[in-house]
Amino acid sequence: MRICFLGESFVNGTGDPACLGWPGRICAHAIAQGHDITHYNLGIRGETSSALLDRAPRELPLRLPEDCDGRVIYSFGTNDMTWHDDATRVSVAASLQNLEALLAWTQPRYPVLVVSPCPVDDVAHVDRLVALVEQMAIVCQQRQVPFLDVLTPLQQNAVWLTEAKAYDGAHPRAAGYQALAALVEAWEAWQTWFPSGGELL
Amino acid sequence: MRICFLGESFVNGTGDPACLGWPGRICAHAIAQGHDITHYNLGIRGETSSALLDRAPRELPLRLPEDCDGRVIYSFGTNDMTWHDDATRVSVAASLQNLEALLAWTQPRYPVLVVSPCPVDDVAHVDRLVALVEQMAIVCQQRQVPFLDVLTPLQQNAVWLTEAKAYDGAHPRAAGYQALAALVEAWEAWQTWFPSGGELL
Repeated sequence: MRICFLGESFVNGTGDPACLGWPGRICAHAIAQGHDITHYNLGIRGETSSALLDRAPRELPLRLPEDCDGRVIYSFGTNDMTWHDDATRVSVAASLQNLEALLAWTQPRYPVLVVSPCPVDDVAHVDRLVALVEQMAIVCQQRQVPFLDVLTPLQQNAVWLTEAKAYDGAHPRAAGYQALAALVEAWEAWQTWFPSGGELL
Repeated sequence: MRICFLGESFVNGTGDPACLGWPGRICAHAIAQGHDITHYNLGIRGETSSALLDRAPRELPLRLPEDCDGRVIYSFGTNDMTWHDDATRVSVAASLQNLEALLAWTQPRYPVLVVSPCPVDDVAHVDRLVALVEQMAIVCQQRQVPFLDVLTPLQQNAVWLTEAKAYDGAHPRAAGYQALAALVEAWEAWQTWFPSGGELL
């Protein structure tokens, strides 16, 4: 199985001294359990969903050719809701349209999951993210794409919040990314990609 | 500093249960020494230098905007020299032209290093790689781009060879990638990117 993770700095793992981020952590764990995985980390720092929508149809087919078991996980939204020049970088409506368009392109090609954006150390920014995540969940539900809200639990995760505040106000370090990895690993939609006994090395 | 690693499966770290490959290992080590690094692993399994030349000018600027300290490391050639339908997938001449064109595009934009392709468990394939690497070194020397031959030492590295033979005849596991990481870390051209005392967190 080849899995592409697309999104922003939290997908890249920015700030993680282990250079794994949550994608590397959950893939290494699945490999340790006997699964054969190639992982492609396509997170880009500072990227909005508009830029992601533009590149995903170019970058994914190069890495997930038709004869492979290719999978896709998106996680974005934090940069969309960054305040810049009296507005968010991307409006809520445009962000949801981008999610809709990404899923419309991806669903006929690859199994796809969506992980919500992550919190930052800024109350107003988080409030905008909470509103966005509610709507992202609806878009995903309508398209029958599994959606995981990590914003709510990470907002209450002392390890994440402490590391992010101490580092740059946004990104955690190793323990915070491990906490996020644990949330994704506990997700039924992720687990169903690895039925026990299936696809063992 | 933001570093993009571009190349084939050996850059991706295919077969590494730790999901780091050599790029993740050398970046994690540099971070542990106090350097601020964001790393982007853009290795793609099975890709030739022709496909790499096509995508690099699209994928790099998205990750290395002008206001950042962006760096590039290429490592490719093994797939070019794969035998397919009575010929190599890419001719030696075309492979060298692709290297030349990649460097011509990259050098005005980012500091760039080149790491040679890696060996596989196939004597004829390795013979073709040895000939290619000799020519790659000359192209890089003419353009004053640092070039590291890892083909020669890895051909004699028992850990690499044993792991690759036991896995899929091409890719090593954690210890083999660690051996390759050690070769790159010991390289003066890599070390000069991190002057002692400079750019500490």
